[in-house]
Amino acid sequence: MTNARTWRGRAFLGMSLDGYIAGPGDDLSFLEAAPGKGQHAATPDTVPALVWETFYPQIDTLLMGRATYDKVLTFGDWPYTDKRVIVLSTTLSEDAPNVRVVRSTDEAIEVLDAEGAEQVYVDGGRTVQEFLRRGLLDELTVSIVPSVIGGGKRLFGDGDRADFVVRGSHVEADGLVRITYDILQG
Amino acid sequence: MTNARTWRGRAFLGMSLDGYIAGPGDDLSFLEAAPGKGQHAATPDTVPALVWETFYPQIDTLLMGRATYDKVLTFGDWPYTDKRVIVLSTTLSEDAPNVRVVRSTDEAIEVLDAEGAEQVYVDGGRTVQEFLRRGLLDELTVSIVPSVIGGGKRLFGDGDRADFVVRGSHVEADGLVRITYDILQG
Repeated sequence: MTNARTWRGRAFLGMSLDGYIAGPGDDLSFLEAAPGKGQHAATPDTVPALVWETFYPQIDTLLMGRATYDKVLTFGDWPYTDKRVIVLSTTLSEDAPNVRVVRSTDEAIEVLDAEGAEQVYVDGGRTVQEFLRRGLLDELTVSIVPSVIGGGKRLFGDGDRADFVVRGSHVEADGLVRITYDILQG
Repeated sequence: MTNARTWRGRAFLGMSLDGYIAGPGDDLSFLEAAPGKGQHAATPDTVPALVWETFYPQIDTLLMGRATYDKVLTFGDWPYTDKRVIVLSTTLSEDAPNVRVVRSTDEAIEVLDAEGAEQVYVDGGRTVQEFLRRGLLDELTVSIVPSVIGGGKRLFGDGDRADFVVRGSHVEADGLVRITYDILQG
């Protein structure tokens, strides 16, 4: 199977043990709740998963949905000054600062190809699902929070299928079990 | 909070990355599919999760639902000759060989207490959920298969809540990411 893409799609996400990337009402507090503080058995990171400090410098482009873009704006100063940022939205103004707005996944792919993107951080639950389903996601780093939260927005949807290769994994002091997977295509 | 129980409830399960312990129609083939064979980065097990060989000798009692009991019967010879086995079923005959049949979770708890059980392997999706919800599960070893399967029977249900402490984790050569958690009680 040939792959004409010049870029790799990469996701980097937190998830509860029961598969949620956000709780009811998009509540993200479970990501910070830190249950069992000081009690977790951290493991050696001799074959580590990616962490933000090793992942972020490798990417040249961020692609995110509108909901994620709005969330980033609440952080204050625009954090991605050194990266190409593409926002997938049917409603966001084309004049939005700091970002390139695209109206569809197809247009996003055109822009990624035309601009010579190479390492694309795909962010936001719906965008990650769409890229996974279209075979456009090559890597997933998932950080499994030591909680079951019982409801919210799932990382994977009904009918999704994928197989993975483990590239690295380690446990952090706060009980995050990080895993970096390569995604096997077709 | 006092805990009058004399026994620990312990679960040991395989799960897809999207949270399923069985596929549609109770299909368990994803547990054996072994995607990415030979490509996974196994990690050191210096702080390992439990594996069958370290878990099974520690338990004195198995408690399982009817569906799990029926599955075990298909394996051929009865495998748990050296353990107390309790089956939770409203329909199984009390004369079923090798096992003690109980009709409710309350009766199961009475029997565990009366017989002086200490280390209880709680097996079967519904039984594990019930024990988790009632605060009767103390330990969970989950082996995350490197696949998303898109449907089936989930390990955790809507509204379940739990927090965990990581006791160990390692990656096996077949890409299983094993994690042993202690479950924080209320």
